[in-house]
Amino acid sequence: MKLAIDAMGGDNAPKEIVLGAMKAVQAFSDIHITLVGDENKIKETLSAHDRISVLHTTDVILGTDEPVKAVRRKKNASMVLAAQQVADGLADACISAGNTGALVAAGLFVVGRIDGIHRPALAPTLPTIGGEGFLLLDVGANADAKPEHLLQNAIMGSIYSEKVRGISKPRVGLLNIGTEEKKGNELTKQTFELLKNANLNFVGNVEARDLLDGVADVVVTDGFTGNMVLKTIEGTALSMFKMLKTALMSSFKSKMAAAVLKPNLKTLKNTMDYSEYGGAALFGLKAPVIKAHGSSNGQSIYSAIRQTREMVSNDVGGLIKQTIETDNSEK
Amino acid sequence: MKLAIDAMGGDNAPKEIVLGAMKAVQAFSDIHITLVGDENKIKETLSAHDRISVLHTTDVILGTDEPVKAVRRKKNASMVLAAQQVADGLADACISAGNTGALVAAGLFVVGRIDGIHRPALAPTLPTIGGEGFLLLDVGANADAKPEHLLQNAIMGSIYSEKVRGISKPRVGLLNIGTEEKKGNELTKQTFELLKNANLNFVGNVEARDLLDGVADVVVTDGFTGNMVLKTIEGTALSMFKMLKTALMSSFKSKMAAAVLKPNLKTLKNTMDYSEYGGAALFGLKAPVIKAHGSSNGQSIYSAIRQTREMVSNDVGGLIKQTIETDNSEK
Repeated sequence: MKLAIDAMGGDNAPKEIVLGAMKAVQAFSDIHITLVGDENKIKETLSAHDRISVLHTTDVILGTDEPVKAVRRKKNASMVLAAQQVADGLADACISAGNTGALVAAGLFVVGRIDGIHRPALAPTLPTIGGEGFLLLDVGANADAKPEHLLQNAIMGSIYSEKVRGISKPRVGLLNIGTEEKKGNELTKQTFELLKNANLNFVGNVEARDLLDGVADVVVTDGFTGNMVLKTIEGTALSMFKMLKTALMSSFKSKMAAAVLKPNLKTLKNTMDYSEYGGAALFGLKAPVIKAHGSSNGQSIYSAIRQTREMVSNDVGGLIKQTIETDNSEK
Repeated sequence: MKLAIDAMGGDNAPKEIVLGAMKAVQAFSDIHITLVGDENKIKETLSAHDRISVLHTTDVILGTDEPVKAVRRKKNASMVLAAQQVADGLADACISAGNTGALVAAGLFVVGRIDGIHRPALAPTLPTIGGEGFLLLDVGANADAKPEHLLQNAIMGSIYSEKVRGISKPRVGLLNIGTEEKKGNELTKQTFELLKNANLNFVGNVEARDLLDGVADVVVTDGFTGNMVLKTIEGTALSMFKMLKTALMSSFKSKMAAAVLKPNLKTLKNTMDYSEYGGAALFGLKAPVIKAHGSSNGQSIYSAIRQTREMVSNDVGGLIKQTIETDNSEK
C-alpha cells in the first residue's frame, strides 16, 4: 500500500510529519510512504528507510491562501503533488495537515469524485464522554447542502464507521433543533424522510446538546451547521480550560490543589482533544484523502496514517461506490 | 409599569416564579405584577403585596405540547393569558419560563408583530470568558431565515444592547464558518452585503470558536444555526463538568484537592450558566415577551423581570419600530 503525505502542511511541519511517518513504517510492514516537500528540511528529521521516499518540491500552500485559487495555481505545492500521486495511481491515498479548504479543493479537482456522489463530505471523529467518539459529517466541504447530499453523507459515514471503526450497524442521527420528527428547517425535514426510508440504522433527530453523550455513531448535517458545531465544541472546551486555569491559579491554596489534580485534568484535556481521534476523512472521492489536525504532532500523524491504512485495506471507497451505484440503479 | 408573568411555566413553577416576583416588587417601586396561574398553588408561596395580583387559571401549556397547536387550543393556559394581558393593553410586557416554542407562538399570534418586522427573533445573552456576555439572535424563532430577516435581527439586537445593556455602538458580528468576507453559505454571503451597508457597527464575520472570547456584542444568525450553537455550548459545558467531576472523584487524593477547589469551580460553573444572564428576549413583537430559562429559580426570574423592566422603560420596541419604519421609507 502506498501513501502520499504532504510533509509541509500544518503547524509543526515538516518535523512532526516526518516523525509520524517514521513511526508508521515501523508499525506497519505493508505501507510505503512518499513524503512530499522540501527534501533538505525533511532530511533534517528523516532517518533513511527503504519504505519512505521523498518527492521534492519547495512550493507550499499556506493556511492564509484562498483554497480553490491556491490549488489551481500552485500545481507544484506539496499538497497538490500529494493528491496528484493519488490521481496518477502512484499512491492509494493521501494525507495533509495543511489548509483544510485547499485539501477539499485538491481532493475534488485532483483526486476527483466517485461517480454518483454529488458532493464530498469532510468527517472528523469527535469526542464523547464515554470515549467512543462519533463521526460528524459534513463539517464544511459543502456549505449549501440538499437532502440527497445528506443521505449520501449518512451512507458514507455508516460504511466508514462499520469498516474502519468496527461498529456493527452504526446508529445514524440527523442533527436537528429538536428530536421530534417534524422539527427543523426545510433541509432537515426533507432529509428526515429520506433517511427514514434508507437502508440505514437511522435513530432519528439528535440534538446538539446530546452529541458528547454519544447519542449516535454517525451524525449527519450540512457543512455550514457541522462546521459551526465543530467549532463551537472546540471553542467552548478551550474557553472552559482557560477559565478553569484562571480559577485554579487564583490563590496559593488553589494552586496547590491544582498541582495534585494535574494528571486528572490532563486526562480530561486529552478526552476533549479531537486530534487524538485521528484525522478527518474526506468521503466521496476516488481514493481516501485525510485531513490531519493543523496542530498535529508525530503521534497524531501516526494515528492519521493508521486510519488511512484501514480505509484503504477495507476498501471504504469501493464499498461507497458500490452502495451508491446499487441505490441509483434501484431508482 | 405592568408586567404579566406566567406563574406556571418552567421546572420550578409556581414557587420560584412567585419568589422572583416578590423580590422584584421590593426592588422596583414602579412595577405591578400580575401572576397568571393556579391561585391556590401560587398562594402557597405568595405573601400578600399591593403590587402583585393573581389572575386565576388552571389550564397550562406543557413542555411536551406541540407549540402552535397548544397556543391555538389552550386559550386559557397561563402562558396564553399572560400574552393576552399584553394584547389587551392590561400589561406592558410578559414573561414565561415555559415551553419556548409555545411562547414564540403566543408572542406571534397573541401579542403580534411590529409592522414591517418580517419575523420575530429569540435572543438570549450568552456567557463570555470576560463576563460581559453577548447577545445571540436568532436561536430558533425562525428556522428558515432570509438575508433581510438577519438584517432586522442585527438592528433589533443592536438597539437592545445599546438601550438595555448600556453598550455604546454595539459590535455586530455575522456568525459564519470563516472570518473572510466571501466565506459561508448563500445566506451569510448575501447577509454580509446587507450588514456592510447598514447603519450598524458591523465588525464582519465571526467564528463560533471565538464567541466565548467576546468577539462581538451582538451575533447574528438564522434560528436553526443559532439554536445549534446555543445547544452545543450548553452541551459541551455540561459534558465537561461531568467529565471534570469524574476526574476529580477518581481517587482519595483528587477528592481532597477537589474539596479545596470547590468555590473556584462553583464560580466557573456560574460563569457558564447563561440563565445568570437573564432571560431570552423575543424581539420584533408589539411588546416585550421574555423567555426565562426553564430551570429558573427565584433569582433568575428576578433578573428576567429587571431586564423586562429595562426593555419597557427604554421603549426598545418603540425604537425598533421607528428604525424599521425609517429604513423602509428610505428604500
